[in-house]
Amino acid sequence: MRGAILAIGNELVEGRVPNTTSFLAARRLFPLGYEIREILTVPDDLALIKESLRRFLGRYPFVIVSGGLGPTTDDLTNEAVAEALGLPLEVKEEVLKRIEAWEKEAGLPPNPLRRKMAKLPAGAVLLTNEKAMAGYYLKVGEKLIFCLPGVPQEFEYLLKERVIPILLEHFPPEEVVRFKLYKIFGLREADINLRLMELEELPGVVLGYYPVLPEIHLSLTVKHPSKEKAEELFRQAEAKIYSLFGEYIFGENDDLLEAVVGRLLEERGEMLAVAESCTGGLISSRITRVPGSSAYFERGVVTYSNRAKQEILGVPEEMIAKHGAVSEPVALAMAEGIRNLARTNYGLSVTGIAGPTGGTPEKPAGTVWIGFSCREATVAQCFLFPGDRHLVQDFSATTALDWLRRYLRYGTLVPRYQFARRS
Amino acid sequence: MRGAILAIGNELVEGRVPNTTSFLAARRLFPLGYEIREILTVPDDLALIKESLRRFLGRYPFVIVSGGLGPTTDDLTNEAVAEALGLPLEVKEEVLKRIEAWEKEAGLPPNPLRRKMAKLPAGAVLLTNEKAMAGYYLKVGEKLIFCLPGVPQEFEYLLKERVIPILLEHFPPEEVVRFKLYKIFGLREADINLRLMELEELPGVVLGYYPVLPEIHLSLTVKHPSKEKAEELFRQAEAKIYSLFGEYIFGENDDLLEAVVGRLLEERGEMLAVAESCTGGLISSRITRVPGSSAYFERGVVTYSNRAKQEILGVPEEMIAKHGAVSEPVALAMAEGIRNLARTNYGLSVTGIAGPTGGTPEKPAGTVWIGFSCREATVAQCFLFPGDRHLVQDFSATTALDWLRRYLRYGTLVPRYQFARRS
Repeated sequence: MRGAILAIGNELVEGRVPNTTSFLAARRLFPLGYEIREILTVPDDLALIKESLRRFLGRYPFVIVSGGLGPTTDDLTNEAVAEALGLPLEVKEEVLKRIEAWEKEAGLPPNPLRRKMAKLPAGAVLLTNEKAMAGYYLKVGEKLIFCLPGVPQEFEYLLKERVIPILLEHFPPEEVVRFKLYKIFGLREADINLRLMELEELPGVVLGYYPVLPEIHLSLTVKHPSKEKAEELFRQAEAKIYSLFGEYIFGENDDLLEAVVGRLLEERGEMLAVAESCTGGLISSRITRVPGSSAYFERGVVTYSNRAKQEILGVPEEMIAKHGAVSEPVALAMAEGIRNLARTNYGLSVTGIAGPTGGTPEKPAGTVWIGFSCREATVAQCFLFPGDRHLVQDFSATTALDWLRRYLRYGTLVPRYQFARRS
Repeated sequence: MRGAILAIGNELVEGRVPNTTSFLAARRLFPLGYEIREILTVPDDLALIKESLRRFLGRYPFVIVSGGLGPTTDDLTNEAVAEALGLPLEVKEEVLKRIEAWEKEAGLPPNPLRRKMAKLPAGAVLLTNEKAMAGYYLKVGEKLIFCLPGVPQEFEYLLKERVIPILLEHFPPEEVVRFKLYKIFGLREADINLRLMELEELPGVVLGYYPVLPEIHLSLTVKHPSKEKAEELFRQAEAKIYSLFGEYIFGENDDLLEAVVGRLLEERGEMLAVAESCTGGLISSRITRVPGSSAYFERGVVTYSNRAKQEILGVPEEMIAKHGAVSEPVALAMAEGIRNLARTNYGLSVTGIAGPTGGTPEKPAGTVWIGFSCREATVAQCFLFPGDRHLVQDFSATTALDWLRRYLRYGTLVPRYQFARRS
């Protein structure tokens, strides 16, 4: 079942605001059996919008349109849809009432432009009861056109709560689609390629390989008219993927590494503290983006200066003077220091050179020591991460979190990693 | 001067990987006078690629194509371009040599699929001398078609270093375009709208209004055949914008708030330390994403647990027991505590309820106290931020950083903010 997405807005084609909603929609629709074939972004131009709508409706059973539903003179979607389909515009009383109520509540004077939002193509069915949220759909013969607001939160809400159920009802999927994304970290790209070659002989499955640095994502798609057969092919392929990539798969689908680690800690009733230097708070921030992280995250310190390393973590001044802040002894002292200070089960430390400045021939930018402290031992590894400052920080944070994951999941004290270098 | 962008890749239309390159290109091209009218994303489908290419070349003077230049069976761009233009594919010796050299260096066996990358449409001009980077362009009559790799870093490099110079030479801009983006924070949307109404009477200027929560971005575009007139109109409009929004504009164009704050600190030779609870490291991380931040950022602490607040910052246990962690006394104690501990000029603190859990009727999710400590005084404000956990954290971090900005820039000890609430 194929469809297209039309995203409208000058801010999009001028690159002021990235078009995230179209790709999010495509992502949600694909595993359900709805294949988006074209995603077109156009400016607030009536002729271009009409032409694009006509072309899409001519060739696809459904079209999702985003943007252009607002009150400004640039908002042209209602007009364009009406003209493209040869429908009159009609004032929808309910929308008019909602606009008036919203204006009153916001303390704003009545604005005639806003009333434009109440003029919808004849036959439009509202998608929501929310006071300030636009959105409707139309049946055009056997086809469907959805018009959604461009604001990401509103678009996503309506897509999930209204568009998808309507699609599922109107166009029940003809094939069974089984889909999963496997998130991989720690393997060299060449190693992944070698292992992937063993997978490509499986019949009926389509694999996708997506570097999303520092991670690699592997997608598995199985389509079959028969549910049993689709499930069987899927199970076989998944088993093969796990046997090939095992410990390096940290999660599936929307899993975030920091949430996976959090769940593992929470299951064991254990706690973590982190001491960061060059990652500068990134690890703590990633952990605390996850709701409920206070169950397993006790504290973090960003000992950005050497003085902070000494004062907060007790790293001896002589140690830093002798070995440098980016060294094995300091990484060990920081990891053990934060674990003792916080009295947690685990401590992670990162000390390195994120770049672009600060590198030397002996310790170039990208040189990062990561320390891991648990009851069993305190250990550290040296890495040489590629890329610019942000990528080095991202790799460092991901490696540290993934190290803890592999210890919790597999008991590995010193896991092997891509980019590890001999000290 | 109008053009279009065609982004090719199953991973894009399936939403596996967001299409960032197209929008980045549009953003870079727009201020130079090159208006992207359509951004189309299609799958790895020969027929669809050819048809889209033909349509774009039929109506626009230039087209930028990304993706599909690799060695896999899904990579169809060269074939599609050749067929759409009726050109033969020819082996480019130089590309073949590069592939062989790259394989040798990477220790990979010769792969016949990779040699496909050396078969380009006749007349293709290579865009780079880089060994492992694909990319070429073609003149089609008076028109230009650029074929770039989909990998963001490679696409951006070639766009900036090769595509833009070629465009400027082949299609010198007919109008002078002056463009700037103003980044605003702290004003209510209704207030911004009121002020914007005063701007809309200026002739010859186009304004754009883009919520990029928690910030608001305002774009100013002036186009005129005469350079002097364009500059004059631009200056007038900019002066008006600054007079209307003044203290609430924290930066322009690509400025990041954390970098603006960093520059202000560095100019004064002053230093900052932060104590975070519900922002969980986000402030420290944003600061340290900026290269050179060690010049003004001494340390951060993420006192996620109450015990950490007590142990690291000396916040008395009785104070937390009496007022709660999310309170004015605690915010003040944290801000002053970290400033004293780190012996910095400034301390920032955040303690709040990011949600979704943890709220009460008295202190609902979104309730955040932010503290600011400097030599002059230590003060705190209470906020009620909207949205989900991430948005509350983003608003908190931005408010804290912006508070410091407004103190450094304007000497305001307690700046007024959107979402501030009476304690």
